[in-house]
Amino acid sequence: MKNYKVILAYDGGRYNGWQKQGNTENTIQARLERIVSEIAGAETEVFGSGRTDAGTHATGQAANFHIDWQGTPEELLSTLNSRLPEDIAGLSIAEVPPRFHSRLNAKAKTYVYTIWNSEQPPVFLRKYAFWCKKPLDREKMEEAAKAFLGEHDFKAFCANKRMKKTTVRRIDAIRFLYDGEKTEIHFTGNGFLYQMVRILTGTLIEVGEGRRQPEDMTAVLQAESREAAGFTAPSHGLCLREVYYH
Amino acid sequence: MKNYKVILAYDGGRYNGWQKQGNTENTIQARLERIVSEIAGAETEVFGSGRTDAGTHATGQAANFHIDWQGTPEELLSTLNSRLPEDIAGLSIAEVPPRFHSRLNAKAKTYVYTIWNSEQPPVFLRKYAFWCKKPLDREKMEEAAKAFLGEHDFKAFCANKRMKKTTVRRIDAIRFLYDGEKTEIHFTGNGFLYQMVRILTGTLIEVGEGRRQPEDMTAVLQAESREAAGFTAPSHGLCLREVYYH
Repeated sequence: MKNYKVILAYDGGRYNGWQKQGNTENTIQARLERIVSEIAGAETEVFGSGRTDAGTHATGQAANFHIDWQGTPEELLSTLNSRLPEDIAGLSIAEVPPRFHSRLNAKAKTYVYTIWNSEQPPVFLRKYAFWCKKPLDREKMEEAAKAFLGEHDFKAFCANKRMKKTTVRRIDAIRFLYDGEKTEIHFTGNGFLYQMVRILTGTLIEVGEGRRQPEDMTAVLQAESREAAGFTAPSHGLCLREVYYH
Repeated sequence: MKNYKVILAYDGGRYNGWQKQGNTENTIQARLERIVSEIAGAETEVFGSGRTDAGTHATGQAANFHIDWQGTPEELLSTLNSRLPEDIAGLSIAEVPPRFHSRLNAKAKTYVYTIWNSEQPPVFLRKYAFWCKKPLDREKMEEAAKAFLGEHDFKAFCANKRMKKTTVRRIDAIRFLYDGEKTEIHFTGNGFLYQMVRILTGTLIEVGEGRRQPEDMTAVLQAESREAAGFTAPSHGLCLREVYYH
């Protein structure tokens, strides 16, 4: 048995997220496991680096699985892609040490949230960007984002109210990229709580619209209560860009 | 009555092209005419700069219509966008002289054909790019494209076999843009025959794959026969980028 790590892209639009849930076939993980199991000729588990929400996309999700494969990694990738639906693709595949685990070994991740900021609708990005009609104040958003850098208790940005484990996370970078009407916010950190990136984005949008001030962000963090933070930006604007190891 | 020119973006994926045909509602023109007529309170014709094929997209189609409108152009645009489906949008609108006609006054157009050249499938561009698995030879494609510059009889690149009017057209520029796995070919010319851009692209792809040579292009033009040219690249990779006036 060899252990393979695969980098995946998927359009999350018609899926109930990454994680398989009971009998539902409509998750990325369940689709992958069925196909990998067919190739393996045996029930095979696929481990992802983490869940992505229903409707959220990925251009660099990492996953691994153990399989008795005699061909090259390239042949395995090609076999996989020939069986996957057109909205899921393997981008690369490599053999990794037997103990490698996509989730347990992940050191950091980058998520990208895409905003379409224009009065005119995002015809071609309508399924991949959140449409904000009001002009957003870029400087204020960038200023506000600085408050989230470093290690903090992000309880205010966690949608799971029954979270029993620590809600402390470290954000290494929040970068803003502008391209015409499109704004991308890149969040890199050692881990993200349930809907954390979407709530951070919603809060930053409220700053951009002038409904909150950059200097209020520290108080939002310190409140440690979901009610203190902004709205949850919709899942279709979010994309898991990259997972970092070792 | 004022004459308004509107610049339109649309995802052609679920439409039978621009041009209304008999009773079908499923064309961009028919959708627009119904909405503009509702706003006008009277049957109103919408003139496009030209047809786009079923499945073909636009980021800069131009159209005009005459309407008795008392508000500002911005208000008209906003009213229009509030009624259009999410895969059609007005990008800008301006009042133009009464005699302006989107098709008759058009001087040139730019079409963009997008190719995804990779062994891995184009998850996010699957509806907007033609997937070529084989590596394409960029130099040979660019070399071949030079044969089409200037004024030529493009009969070999016209899908309409009963074309009675002239098939002479002028191509001003063919530019290649590369961005990772994505290749865009920008065709600018004074007019394009039925499926001309798609047949030009198909022929260039055959050059890129090594099935034809750049130096054979002149003979293809001179044959003046559809059979001499390459395959018709699929409509979903094509996008009308811009229409030029005066």
